[in-house]
Amino acid sequence: MNYDKYEKIVELAKRRGFYWPSYEVYGGVAGFYDLGPLGTLLKQRIIEKWRNWFVKKHQDLVVEVETPVITPYKVLEASGHVKHFTDPIVECLKCGRKYRADQLIEESSKVKVEGLSVDALNRILREYGVRCPMCGGELGEVRLFNLLFTTTIGPYAQDVGYLRPETAQGIFVSFKRIYEAFRERLPIGIAQIGRVARNEISPRQGMVRLREFTIMEVEFFFDPEEPECNLINECKGKLRILPASDRAEGIEEPSEYDVNEAISEGVIKTPWLAYWMCVARDFILDLGIPSSDMYFEEKLSHERAHYSLQTFDQLVRISRWGWIEVSGHAYRGDYDLSMHMKFSGQEFTVFKKFKEPIVIKSKKVLVNRALLGRLFKDKADEVINSILSTNIEDLEKLLGVGGDYIEIGQYLIPKSSISIREVVEKVSGKRIIPHVVEPSFGAERLVLVILDHSYHEEGDRVVLRIPRDLAPIQVAVFPLVNDDALEVKAKEIYNELINNGFYVIYDDSGSIGRRYARADEIGVPLAITVDYQTLDDSTVTLRDRDSRKQIRVRVNYVVKAVTDFLNYKLNIE
Amino acid sequence: MNYDKYEKIVELAKRRGFYWPSYEVYGGVAGFYDLGPLGTLLKQRIIEKWRNWFVKKHQDLVVEVETPVITPYKVLEASGHVKHFTDPIVECLKCGRKYRADQLIEESSKVKVEGLSVDALNRILREYGVRCPMCGGELGEVRLFNLLFTTTIGPYAQDVGYLRPETAQGIFVSFKRIYEAFRERLPIGIAQIGRVARNEISPRQGMVRLREFTIMEVEFFFDPEEPECNLINECKGKLRILPASDRAEGIEEPSEYDVNEAISEGVIKTPWLAYWMCVARDFILDLGIPSSDMYFEEKLSHERAHYSLQTFDQLVRISRWGWIEVSGHAYRGDYDLSMHMKFSGQEFTVFKKFKEPIVIKSKKVLVNRALLGRLFKDKADEVINSILSTNIEDLEKLLGVGGDYIEIGQYLIPKSSISIREVVEKVSGKRIIPHVVEPSFGAERLVLVILDHSYHEEGDRVVLRIPRDLAPIQVAVFPLVNDDALEVKAKEIYNELINNGFYVIYDDSGSIGRRYARADEIGVPLAITVDYQTLDDSTVTLRDRDSRKQIRVRVNYVVKAVTDFLNYKLNIE
Repeated sequence: MNYDKYEKIVELAKRRGFYWPSYEVYGGVAGFYDLGPLGTLLKQRIIEKWRNWFVKKHQDLVVEVETPVITPYKVLEASGHVKHFTDPIVECLKCGRKYRADQLIEESSKVKVEGLSVDALNRILREYGVRCPMCGGELGEVRLFNLLFTTTIGPYAQDVGYLRPETAQGIFVSFKRIYEAFRERLPIGIAQIGRVARNEISPRQGMVRLREFTIMEVEFFFDPEEPECNLINECKGKLRILPASDRAEGIEEPSEYDVNEAISEGVIKTPWLAYWMCVARDFILDLGIPSSDMYFEEKLSHERAHYSLQTFDQLVRISRWGWIEVSGHAYRGDYDLSMHMKFSGQEFTVFKKFKEPIVIKSKKVLVNRALLGRLFKDKADEVINSILSTNIEDLEKLLGVGGDYIEIGQYLIPKSSISIREVVEKVSGKRIIPHVVEPSFGAERLVLVILDHSYHEEGDRVVLRIPRDLAPIQVAVFPLVNDDALEVKAKEIYNELINNGFYVIYDDSGSIGRRYARADEIGVPLAITVDYQTLDDSTVTLRDRDSRKQIRVRVNYVVKAVTDFLNYKLNIE
Repeated sequence: MNYDKYEKIVELAKRRGFYWPSYEVYGGVAGFYDLGPLGTLLKQRIIEKWRNWFVKKHQDLVVEVETPVITPYKVLEASGHVKHFTDPIVECLKCGRKYRADQLIEESSKVKVEGLSVDALNRILREYGVRCPMCGGELGEVRLFNLLFTTTIGPYAQDVGYLRPETAQGIFVSFKRIYEAFRERLPIGIAQIGRVARNEISPRQGMVRLREFTIMEVEFFFDPEEPECNLINECKGKLRILPASDRAEGIEEPSEYDVNEAISEGVIKTPWLAYWMCVARDFILDLGIPSSDMYFEEKLSHERAHYSLQTFDQLVRISRWGWIEVSGHAYRGDYDLSMHMKFSGQEFTVFKKFKEPIVIKSKKVLVNRALLGRLFKDKADEVINSILSTNIEDLEKLLGVGGDYIEIGQYLIPKSSISIREVVEKVSGKRIIPHVVEPSFGAERLVLVILDHSYHEEGDRVVLRIPRDLAPIQVAVFPLVNDDALEVKAKEIYNELINNGFYVIYDDSGSIGRRYARADEIGVPLAITVDYQTLDDSTVTLRDRDSRKQIRVRVNYVVKAVTDFLNYKLNIE
């Protein structure tokens, strides 16, 4: 763990406007961060890249929607969050401070307790004599604390609502509408990028553990009877995975799997889960994270969320916190749609058409209503019902024995009033509940991950080597010295770049070296300098942040050169 | 009001996936809407366009930030929202239903009561004998209902928080950080696009009155001593304004003002407010809304929010609801920064450097510490303090009268131990509190506004004439008939367009006429058809949604043609 580097990033982030703790002037509130001008741009570019990988490239399969943050009680009751979305909490009996019990135990006892029951935690807490780390007081009983932020909707106090802890439930409850608008095809991915909130008990990891953040997730619905993924061959290279079975044996190093191998060996339980893990790997690589700083760790069964049949966390290594989770990949099965079907009483199945209609033979009971009416008068309906509600096989047996009458309930009924016919029906399909796999990312963590991986010191200079296509400010324009003619020309180029949609800074204060340094420190990939030669031959210098090399290009090629450079089609070496 | 058209838009929006009420399967919750795949794309394009007008084009002046939705009590106490962000509510004493009192009175009595006091509302309610519209029961007393959604942060019940009703407060409390990261220059605009929530009492206007929506706003900070706007000459054309003074005289029609005229006549109280109103006008025109369907209405003083010195609503006409507000333009003065300075005890002023340092002459008292030390021993400090804490003018008077001693407090002090000197100081600036103007838009309303203005019927066909650069799906690709060769070619074009970043649909089901109709209904501006001629000469047809005219272009020009068409550089007539 490189604490020193982390502290420098935190300082840089505050000073130059990437991020800082929210509400500082009021003493701050743990778990909330502001994104400043540079952080906001970086986050927007991360989101745009995610959208490209998960939505735009897959637009024949995946659509994006937006549903509200505020969610009524019923929805999260059905989804199991009201009951299961909890962390263990423990209160100091002396000073009243509250702690996340599992974290407190892990810090005091070094025992791994994630996902253990309240009883187990209480036992371990007593066993190790864990006390309040602030005042040394005795701790009370561990209990469960629900992490949903609670509110009420409208003026009626009983209309409880929550802030959503994931965007998924908004997708599930509207699944049928989206499915219908998408011409009723499976598979279909429904993506959502939006705010979620989790009322963490005592978040202490800066941007890593936020009470409010932006999630980017896809709920991908497929037919569980045809789970094959037609895109699986597009997954190149290996996936680094640490399976639960390895973890159970104490193995801590991930292994490399070809994706087809991971599926056939049962390491990944369903093909689409594997496919989206490959996309997730490629997305994180595309953020500039090396393959060796990333792997997938399977959660043990007691570590998984209540809805999940299998979960992988995608872990990335950063300097201060070590391996942190940047995405989760859950196989949710039909849990959510089934629960909403049960709680709402509405239809969540989809109609699956068979390739060929199936012929089904069945038997049907016919009754002679006229005859039964004459015989039983006002009891006739009751008699008919009792015939029709009798199991067909039982009825056949009764009709097969001797005599002209059969006895059903209290009635003797003439056999001649009942006949059984064989019926042939064509069935064109059946109703199924789709299964779901879910890749889910937190956007703000990725801001930190990118800063951590791009932070470099060169002597006393800081350079953020943010990938060119993610850099918040894309180009800097400098007049070499303070001279009206150079400044006019530089401003022209600055304005032309803005009109072409770039984020640009113009800087004419201090030496050119200091201006390069200021731009390097916030990761501006390219600097354009207007000098006296510009006035002679209409060329300017382009300087690469990373190689520090320069080339000269004609002013009227600047837009093209900047575009190509940012897309890695032009290099300056 | 065209109710019929509105109902058709609502039906289309649900069926094709623009928007629908949230949580329908659980009976719905008033004031919440989902955006489907098409609505989400349309909203993204609206946001991108807003960002271009208000941020990117102004990037030397305006930065964008992101702050949390969840806001601690202190912040909204300071901003006045805990006290003032209310609507009047009244409850039926018989059935217990609750209503927004002012709306109920306006509907029953036709009297305009917006912004009136609770007392006034109670009087009018009794005067007109307003009763419960549902059960006819008697109504209770009108009282104020706070519209903030309330929650608690963390496990301590006293840590009350709210969902922000505007993004502005997150900007104000972090103003100093952002100002410093932006190299301490005024003016500076700080933009934010994000979710806000307002717990409306009984919202009943569909997408027009949401309890949760996305706001796009700029807090623009300027020096109140130098309020001039250097960009004012970029405002072309007229602003249509209905000033409060006209409204007070019963005038209902807006007048046209040149922007400089509006400022000099005092119709708009400060130049930057006028500037951003011009940008707001241009932005709404750019969404395809004609000038005649838009104007600015000044709010009367009792209609304004508590923080505002002057407010204009930008109104746009739509079919079902008539004139609706799409943005608000408030002159907030120094209200917010002053209140946060007062409540937090932190510094919110900025240092204003004078163009030239100012020379200030002042007088300074000097004491002979050695002499006083000898004379007064351990009382010397007390004596010195009593001298220095005496007003200089009083001291001069004392020294001016006869004798060698003066009396201060209980001490007789030799005049020789005190001298008064004139000091000359250079002062380079002073501290000021910036003033703020705020343009603020709701994004979801604009989705409805655009659908309303683009909805056209041509015979039994519906065409959404969404401006090309806002259309959710930008291109449709059709093979003319079901033929493998055509389908292969069409898929190639489809994939090439996707790889070039477009949103594209591929449709091969039904007649070509039905496919055009399906694409027209969701506003796809351009359709590409691959036919048998394509196989011969590598050309395809491009069809304009609005003119329905077609041209043929070579396949390898398709990307360029689509790009130009969507940017209005190519027309098909």
